[in-house]
Amino acid sequence: MKPTEGRRRIVIEEVQPQVDAARYPAKRTLGDLVTVTAAIFGDGHDRVAARVLYRHASQSTWKQARLTALPNDFWTANFVVDKLGPWRFTIEAWIDHFDTWMHDLEKRLKAQPDPKEPTQQISTAQDIPLALRIGAGHLDAAAARAIGDDARELKAAAIDLRSMADANEPLYGPIDLDDIALVAAKYPDLSFATKYATEIPIWVDRERARFSSWYEIFPRSCSPAPDKHGTFRDLAARVPEISAMGFDVLYMPPIHPIGVAFRKGKNNSVTAAPGDVGSPWAIGAKEGGHTALLADLGTFDDFAALVKATKANGMELALDIAFQCSPDHPWVTEHPEWFIQRPDGTIQYAENPPKKYQDIYPLNFESKNWTGLWDALFGVFEFWIERGVRIFRVDNPHTKALPFWEWCIAEIQRTTPETIFLAEAFTRPHVMYSLAKGGFTQGYTYFTWRNTKADLQSYFEELTAPPVVEFFRPNVWPNTPDILHEQLQEPDPISRRAMFLQRVILAATLSSNYGIYGPAYELCEWRPAKPAPGKPGSEEYLDSEKYQLRHWDRRAPISIAPEITQLNRIRHENPALQRNENLSFHACANPNLLCYSKSTPDLANTILIVVNLDNRNEQAGTVDLNMAALGLPWQGDFEVEDLLTGARFLWRDQRNYVALRPEVPAHILRIVR
Amino acid sequence: MKPTEGRRRIVIEEVQPQVDAARYPAKRTLGDLVTVTAAIFGDGHDRVAARVLYRHASQSTWKQARLTALPNDFWTANFVVDKLGPWRFTIEAWIDHFDTWMHDLEKRLKAQPDPKEPTQQISTAQDIPLALRIGAGHLDAAAARAIGDDARELKAAAIDLRSMADANEPLYGPIDLDDIALVAAKYPDLSFATKYATEIPIWVDRERARFSSWYEIFPRSCSPAPDKHGTFRDLAARVPEISAMGFDVLYMPPIHPIGVAFRKGKNNSVTAAPGDVGSPWAIGAKEGGHTALLADLGTFDDFAALVKATKANGMELALDIAFQCSPDHPWVTEHPEWFIQRPDGTIQYAENPPKKYQDIYPLNFESKNWTGLWDALFGVFEFWIERGVRIFRVDNPHTKALPFWEWCIAEIQRTTPETIFLAEAFTRPHVMYSLAKGGFTQGYTYFTWRNTKADLQSYFEELTAPPVVEFFRPNVWPNTPDILHEQLQEPDPISRRAMFLQRVILAATLSSNYGIYGPAYELCEWRPAKPAPGKPGSEEYLDSEKYQLRHWDRRAPISIAPEITQLNRIRHENPALQRNENLSFHACANPNLLCYSKSTPDLANTILIVVNLDNRNEQAGTVDLNMAALGLPWQGDFEVEDLLTGARFLWRDQRNYVALRPEVPAHILRIVR
Repeated sequence: MKPTEGRRRIVIEEVQPQVDAARYPAKRTLGDLVTVTAAIFGDGHDRVAARVLYRHASQSTWKQARLTALPNDFWTANFVVDKLGPWRFTIEAWIDHFDTWMHDLEKRLKAQPDPKEPTQQISTAQDIPLALRIGAGHLDAAAARAIGDDARELKAAAIDLRSMADANEPLYGPIDLDDIALVAAKYPDLSFATKYATEIPIWVDRERARFSSWYEIFPRSCSPAPDKHGTFRDLAARVPEISAMGFDVLYMPPIHPIGVAFRKGKNNSVTAAPGDVGSPWAIGAKEGGHTALLADLGTFDDFAALVKATKANGMELALDIAFQCSPDHPWVTEHPEWFIQRPDGTIQYAENPPKKYQDIYPLNFESKNWTGLWDALFGVFEFWIERGVRIFRVDNPHTKALPFWEWCIAEIQRTTPETIFLAEAFTRPHVMYSLAKGGFTQGYTYFTWRNTKADLQSYFEELTAPPVVEFFRPNVWPNTPDILHEQLQEPDPISRRAMFLQRVILAATLSSNYGIYGPAYELCEWRPAKPAPGKPGSEEYLDSEKYQLRHWDRRAPISIAPEITQLNRIRHENPALQRNENLSFHACANPNLLCYSKSTPDLANTILIVVNLDNRNEQAGTVDLNMAALGLPWQGDFEVEDLLTGARFLWRDQRNYVALRPEVPAHILRIVR
Repeated sequence: MKPTEGRRRIVIEEVQPQVDAARYPAKRTLGDLVTVTAAIFGDGHDRVAARVLYRHASQSTWKQARLTALPNDFWTANFVVDKLGPWRFTIEAWIDHFDTWMHDLEKRLKAQPDPKEPTQQISTAQDIPLALRIGAGHLDAAAARAIGDDARELKAAAIDLRSMADANEPLYGPIDLDDIALVAAKYPDLSFATKYATEIPIWVDRERARFSSWYEIFPRSCSPAPDKHGTFRDLAARVPEISAMGFDVLYMPPIHPIGVAFRKGKNNSVTAAPGDVGSPWAIGAKEGGHTALLADLGTFDDFAALVKATKANGMELALDIAFQCSPDHPWVTEHPEWFIQRPDGTIQYAENPPKKYQDIYPLNFESKNWTGLWDALFGVFEFWIERGVRIFRVDNPHTKALPFWEWCIAEIQRTTPETIFLAEAFTRPHVMYSLAKGGFTQGYTYFTWRNTKADLQSYFEELTAPPVVEFFRPNVWPNTPDILHEQLQEPDPISRRAMFLQRVILAATLSSNYGIYGPAYELCEWRPAKPAPGKPGSEEYLDSEKYQLRHWDRRAPISIAPEITQLNRIRHENPALQRNENLSFHACANPNLLCYSKSTPDLANTILIVVNLDNRNEQAGTVDLNMAALGLPWQGDFEVEDLLTGARFLWRDQRNYVALRPEVPAHILRIVR
């Protein structure tokens, strides 16, 4: 069957940014310049014109920007997203007959016989007048589409062309049509324009979605007195010093009543001793569940004071949302249909046979009352949003139904688009990426287990290039309360400090979003829990804060807090480090030296980083820079300033020698322009 | 807004084969095994099951095949396309609770205390009976979905499990559930199954779309007598010898009346001398247009005899369809609205300013009467299809509207799906690929201008890998009447012969579809037309057959017809050479030695080719084979047979020495298994 209009001769393909054929939005942040590219072409040699149409979803009219041609039938345009939330864009393209005519005329005029060389004879006598008349026709048509002065101007230009045709005098130079072409371009003939079939979604988050520094802390360990249960007030008192370190997100593990049934004791022992505080992730007791506070931490007033203290210090509070219940959670009795019931009437606890987690009841996303469950979970977010929280770290989202997240996050961001969701999913790549596509603002990563140069480079190349960079924002953590990587389990204090420095430098410079499980990282806490007999080494902390209070002495001499403070300052002062799609790696033959850079789009700020991955030995080598990525000529001197030491070096051309000792395991070089 | 059913927990992504998000069909040929892959996953750790649903578009019911798991959440299944034309497939996936239960049970049983080691104590006493009852519940549910014996069997198995649970005796070994699992798998619970949103199209062509050897010949040069205008009868007489060379498609330039107005003379001179035959592409005279025959070539009876002769010799005739008109074409007066009219009432001839082609009127695809034009062009194909033609080589399709081709080809193939269209488009990559997506069965390529090892390898890697391999079938030509590449313009007869051999070997082994402009290639015709003064070298033939008759002496001693015959025999005897997606390149440090291989999917036939790209010197080097691509172990001896010389060699491991002189510029080695 023929199309309704067979004269739409343009094809529009490969439109970017686009995630899974526009099934999911590409992510950007407020104020970003969105660079659209597309392949746009038609049959034959006619010239093409195209524009991108874009709008915030709340607006009914499109704004537009002309696309400009790149090589190989690709086109590009930019637009700024200046409002949070959902945007749409699409592309419209058409054959520009006036532009085609202008370029042909230019070639015709160039081919005219040169009056100084009368031997040349190209018989074009009638061609030029005819061409002028054809052009006049195009201008008439444009005038009919135009309004006001523009219409008059176009009509006048048409009359001029016809007069020239009537005069039929030889024309040797080019005719200046640039001005009238600009007017004509405002009134394109869209009768046979092709519109891209899809309106492509973009989601715009606030800046913190792209650039954030997280500090995780257990409020119950914040009391100045050892062995005393800490409170929100205790934590609020420490906010100024955490803020002074340069962190902007203060993240607390769950703050709800903790279950008593099957409570875990210290070091995850199966039976709790009297006085054991239990795991904050065993959520719910008779006092309440996900919308209640653990009384030992304080009241809602205390919580509000903490929210206020973080704001006053330029920080934000992030809550941990773990959708699971202790056997004592009110939902267990109020909504037994939200859980899996076994044939004996008991509720199915969490299992990974033969392992059992009898202190945790998972929710059943195949519940007959799934809509009630979804509403209740949504309500948990709503509850804390009403209390001033706008950042949520979601615990194990990959064990909850993916369609739930897509609905829930969209529903929340519909009214509070500034809400940020960090997915704590350490699972298979497809599932992690699917959570991001479905709406999670940021995601935890495999960074902790990417420890060699090859692994770091290939992983961050994947994360910072399309398609992944369009939807997945990494938030990289050198440690978490669950993960003390083997690399950090270093008994020797000198090598240990070097390794902790190395990993936090990598995290803070490879990724614009990063975080640390704060007190343990600052103090280079390294002792792992004893592995089970016959099992490989554990990544659990010894005396883990997950099961007991800890008292951290932030003044201990091993503390790397000063270096972390410096790192955060460098991140704040250098916008190149505040985004990820600008990451480039540079070659170095030494497998222990990782070299990479980030630049702002305008190249005003370029940071070049070299990290020594060996925490025991000095490593040296020649880095072989990709000068184009640095915005530098391939040859010539350039100055670099080491932002860690303040030293300045003069580097020459692309190959430069570097030596790094473990104590200061990196250069963070700003290119001085 | 919540989805209708929020319990569909599976995500299906990255489904292949798929072209532009299913906007265009992926191409296959009759009898192909279509390998479907997809990423399929859900939340949590439940086990997933999935099936591909597929059907010919003419059938209303789906066939199905279970997908099996690959690493990293990828799944795969195969199905055979055993009917020409349009097919559809999609994927359905669900959580398999019975399978999840079985695997958990196995782990539970393994973790049971060993009766021989009574010290081990894991308190699972009630777990196993409970698990057995849960499994019985799954089997009951499957029985309710099942029919006949299967239902009875499932019910019985459920009763067995419950008896075991009631007995509550220790179970130490695994329970054998494999048989009942197979029965249960026939009746999956699809209540919460996810269906992929799209029905993905596949187009199935006949085998010749994938594997063909074309011979281009001007019938007017086929007279045994020099200077006499050849006829269809003359060509028919030569079909047996062309067939004996192993070609299966006989392709003729246009056979219609040739325009008189502005007819081109010999060597493309602007004025024709009396008796000049003109260009066959200047179609149309008072005798008729695209559905008429040039009287000098013969009658429709003669044409029918030629069709019959090609069939009798196992060949097929391919017609050249060039949608353009000489000023004498009947359409010019019958349908002036199909052309562009200039302000002076004249019709616009073809131009690329300042060049003019006054003997050619292009069609106007923006005509007010575009539907009439489309119908007329469609009618041309229909006319020749009625006369037994099923292969069309379409001249310059990229200067006609792309939507026209998509409609026209679909409309023709709706009733004659065996029709093959070869796009003669030498233009920008997007346009060439778009023609293929829009329906062209095969396309001309840049092969002629890919002459170095790096260029050949990167180009054929692009052509033989997704996405391109899914829609674009290359048909590679070392020469055409329009293109005598500089490489072939070799005065020295020894080097010339070597170059002609090299290029046809590359064409015939890199691509399953290839062709030659036959007589000129066999006889190593090398003389270029004189370039215009001050212009770079010409790719036009001197005394081009496009403008005059030629008499070819096929018995000339330089003829490479015997070698071409041998090449075609090798192609016919070795199915590995009859497809393209199986191409692999192998390393060799010598930049003049190109090494590649092709295998059948079952590895029964593997051909390894090494070509010397230097037509003047012997080149030698060590090839470094990718043994996996050859289906060989990384170490060990293997025998190869050179299909060009009959010699057999024993090769060892992956590195083997090769030396090739220009006279026999290639090894075509069959791996002897």
